[in-house]
Amino acid sequence: INRKVIKMNWPWVWIMLCFLCPTVVYGGKVLVFPVDGSHWVNMKVIIEELHSRGHQVSVVRSSDSWYIKETSLFYTSVTLDIESGFDEDFITKFVARLLEIQREGKSAWTRFKLEMEQAQKASEMYEKTCKMLELLFESKDLIQSLKEAKYDLVLTDPAIPGGVILAHYLKLPLVFNVRWTTHGEGHFSIAPSPLSYVPMTGTELSDKMSFLERIFNTIIFVFTEYQIVHYVLPNYAGLLEKYLGPDADYHSLFQAADLWLMRVDFVFEYPRPTMPNVVYMGGFQCKPAKPLPQHLEEFVQSSGEHGVIIMSLGTLIGELPHDLANEIAAAFAKLPQKVIWRYKGDRPATVGNNTLLVDWMPQNDLLGHPKIKLFVAHGGTNGVQEAIYHGVPILGLPLIFDQRDNIFRIEVRGAGKILDIFTVNEDIFFQGVQEVLTEPSYRMNMQRLSRLHRDQPMKPLDTALFWIEFVMRHKGAAHLRTESYRLPWYSYHSVDVMLLLAGVVLIILVTFVALIRCLCCKLCLRTKRKCD
Amino acid sequence: INRKVIKMNWPWVWIMLCFLCPTVVYGGKVLVFPVDGSHWVNMKVIIEELHSRGHQVSVVRSSDSWYIKETSLFYTSVTLDIESGFDEDFITKFVARLLEIQREGKSAWTRFKLEMEQAQKASEMYEKTCKMLELLFESKDLIQSLKEAKYDLVLTDPAIPGGVILAHYLKLPLVFNVRWTTHGEGHFSIAPSPLSYVPMTGTELSDKMSFLERIFNTIIFVFTEYQIVHYVLPNYAGLLEKYLGPDADYHSLFQAADLWLMRVDFVFEYPRPTMPNVVYMGGFQCKPAKPLPQHLEEFVQSSGEHGVIIMSLGTLIGELPHDLANEIAAAFAKLPQKVIWRYKGDRPATVGNNTLLVDWMPQNDLLGHPKIKLFVAHGGTNGVQEAIYHGVPILGLPLIFDQRDNIFRIEVRGAGKILDIFTVNEDIFFQGVQEVLTEPSYRMNMQRLSRLHRDQPMKPLDTALFWIEFVMRHKGAAHLRTESYRLPWYSYHSVDVMLLLAGVVLIILVTFVALIRCLCCKLCLRTKRKCD
Repeated sequence: INRKVIKMNWPWVWIMLCFLCPTVVYGGKVLVFPVDGSHWVNMKVIIEELHSRGHQVSVVRSSDSWYIKETSLFYTSVTLDIESGFDEDFITKFVARLLEIQREGKSAWTRFKLEMEQAQKASEMYEKTCKMLELLFESKDLIQSLKEAKYDLVLTDPAIPGGVILAHYLKLPLVFNVRWTTHGEGHFSIAPSPLSYVPMTGTELSDKMSFLERIFNTIIFVFTEYQIVHYVLPNYAGLLEKYLGPDADYHSLFQAADLWLMRVDFVFEYPRPTMPNVVYMGGFQCKPAKPLPQHLEEFVQSSGEHGVIIMSLGTLIGELPHDLANEIAAAFAKLPQKVIWRYKGDRPATVGNNTLLVDWMPQNDLLGHPKIKLFVAHGGTNGVQEAIYHGVPILGLPLIFDQRDNIFRIEVRGAGKILDIFTVNEDIFFQGVQEVLTEPSYRMNMQRLSRLHRDQPMKPLDTALFWIEFVMRHKGAAHLRTESYRLPWYSYHSVDVMLLLAGVVLIILVTFVALIRCLCCKLCLRTKRKCD
Repeated sequence: INRKVIKMNWPWVWIMLCFLCPTVVYGGKVLVFPVDGSHWVNMKVIIEELHSRGHQVSVVRSSDSWYIKETSLFYTSVTLDIESGFDEDFITKFVARLLEIQREGKSAWTRFKLEMEQAQKASEMYEKTCKMLELLFESKDLIQSLKEAKYDLVLTDPAIPGGVILAHYLKLPLVFNVRWTTHGEGHFSIAPSPLSYVPMTGTELSDKMSFLERIFNTIIFVFTEYQIVHYVLPNYAGLLEKYLGPDADYHSLFQAADLWLMRVDFVFEYPRPTMPNVVYMGGFQCKPAKPLPQHLEEFVQSSGEHGVIIMSLGTLIGELPHDLANEIAAAFAKLPQKVIWRYKGDRPATVGNNTLLVDWMPQNDLLGHPKIKLFVAHGGTNGVQEAIYHGVPILGLPLIFDQRDNIFRIEVRGAGKILDIFTVNEDIFFQGVQEVLTEPSYRMNMQRLSRLHRDQPMKPLDTALFWIEFVMRHKGAAHLRTESYRLPWYSYHSVDVMLLLAGVVLIILVTFVALIRCLCCKLCLRTKRKCD
């Protein structure tokens, strides 16, 4: 009997080996320079997958990091005894103050001051990254050990400059896990971005713009470029000069990355020019829903035919001002649906019997539950992608960063609706929820997006891993990367060529006109003489 | 025993079913409007694959087509009783006369006249395509049957305009199998193409250009655009107006294609901007070598350690001028290698014992044979892709069309060498062959290209089929396609916005200067008065 079992099983063993083989044959070494906070949530997904495919991962972290733990089953850490500059508390407080200022109708000047504070904080964060790198470069033993470890590549999130500089210092291939960079949305740094149909971040414009909107888009572009050149890039100049030589320029180092794993796809992003070394992995963190814990499943099932609404404003925003929380809770209380609301603040007085307040919820598993009818969300990329994956329409209450832009993309596709959190009250909120729940087009559109998103030759995470391993196998991906970034801007845009050609045409024209004039003069003279 | 066998086999059956399932579940209907000649060779590969996945294919052909047979196992044909304008004989004769003119050092004027003849022929071909379409649109029964057949999409090679116009007439999604269009290289019609690093076709420039080269590239671009606007696009205006209404414009119809399956990849093409609805399937026609026929295998094996050279100048160029054939044959005769030469002309007098002349050869199977050391080729895309796939270096003798450009791409990568067929003689040819054979970098570089080409998440043909079926499943791929082509050129390039902004800046400046002047005048006057 035993022999028979073995015989019957061997094809399975063989098949499993076949599937495992490509992952086992090459165990690479990856050095990761991540960004703390919600970005780390993304990066961790890739690190775990790298680990499961037999690669060794080292993660550079600062000793005060909250999210990036020192010990992990999936990576070894390279800890630097320095403050990261990432301050979760600051962001939470910033949002609270922003809400207060806006809802109480305080002056634009107060808001401007607050935003300047935030900009200052961001700039401090860049500075601290530079200090972190300096500490690393000066720790002779540590940097020597990194050199000797012979990593295959550096994987980084270029929202901070650390990984880019470290990769060049160690002369290693560079792979980005990217949506935002130190200077704006990722695509703008690598692909041509015609401003006539590629909207700038924060403009709340789509890919179809009126003339006035295009003017607005262009002005925002000019301001952003000015800001980058004058305020962002100079931050790293000193560090670069000290460790990479006087000619090193951050923008070029950054554009020399081998591979850009973009955390979007074209179900979410507007169609726009791209480059051969950009790989789209939007929604790579999404996975099928697992069964819910029993108490949640029971609560969800108790909703009957009405279904359930879930609400979460992300990891960083646990609570809301009392009045706002009360308005929202009161609106929820009027609904026949059940509500699961991730809320960490004091229990609002108006919470109805249909509403369950929780500290944390298995968001992905809930979104994948057939009873969930609506997702009230702040519009962080992760949540929006999960909603697309599971086909649940969104009612958005965006606050900061890219949140408004993200929800706007969903609204443009008719798969969700934005409410202004600064002016929202019980009635507006109630109507918003009702509209998305009762108008079937919202759900249908989101489910169409979901079908498009899921219909890919490979799962986004597998695609990402394939290309990371591609860079390992070929020591980079130079054949996919243009070296156009080595051209000065006037050459890149052919301004020099245009000027020269215009010059030549002008000279020809001037000579021609001069010749004609000369001829005319002579003719005139001759006629005059004849007349005389 | 029988039961045991069945039991042991069922996992295999299950696995096979799993693999077959996605191909069986959806049998779509595809209407193909192909281009005759070597383009058909490509299209046929896709048609056969569509057929093998259970789709029904109909092919529009003219009754005089040589390559596109009326009856096939893989498709049903929609035959139009009209001349296609595709004249194989003309191309063969054109090449023969071109060779004669160039090798005998005839005047540039003679060559110019010949090229004008070719341009005339191309224009005739476009005209005939238009007539073919007109005949189709006027055959009420036929067009009605096409409408009733409810195709899922039109697949076409946009080197001729037929498929584009037909798809819009039938209001069907449109998929391109494309490298060349009626107006130049495919990318230029869909993606931004900065002339500073994207070389124009026929310029023999790479993606790294000097200032002078960039000027040359820009001038060629301007001439090409002029030609397109004045000589190409007007050809279809009448037909479009008659059948698609007065506003139809070919360029827009063409850019509205849902999907571009490009017959290149970035191992062959220089890295450059691309678009979300461009899918690269370069080398989709390549497959592993099958065993050679016995007589060929014996001949190949008889080469011993020296190996074998194969030579073919493509389907359309069977023979060469006598003197040239003699020079090449004499050079081959001096080599220790064996040579297999596809040659249809009279046997050159100088053919050596080591050379086997053949009417036809299994090119792919030979290129995949480990004894093959060198491929002497004209540089057609198919042959170059096969050489890359099998890693065999190329000695190129390009003649017309894109052949020189294709081989130049290989030369730039150090994987081959171009010889000028118009000036080549025994010595030059012998040295060229010797150089590519003895200098190991040629083979190493080509094998590197081969490794890069083969290292893809999916085989190119599977990728192409996935995306064709994607268009079937979703009735198009609108979310991957920008609608920027609807913008007039000055809006697309933001010229209107720039002018307005420049105007505003100018007005502000002028007002400012006027104010300053006014103030100065007043001050002066006052001072003067005081002085007085």
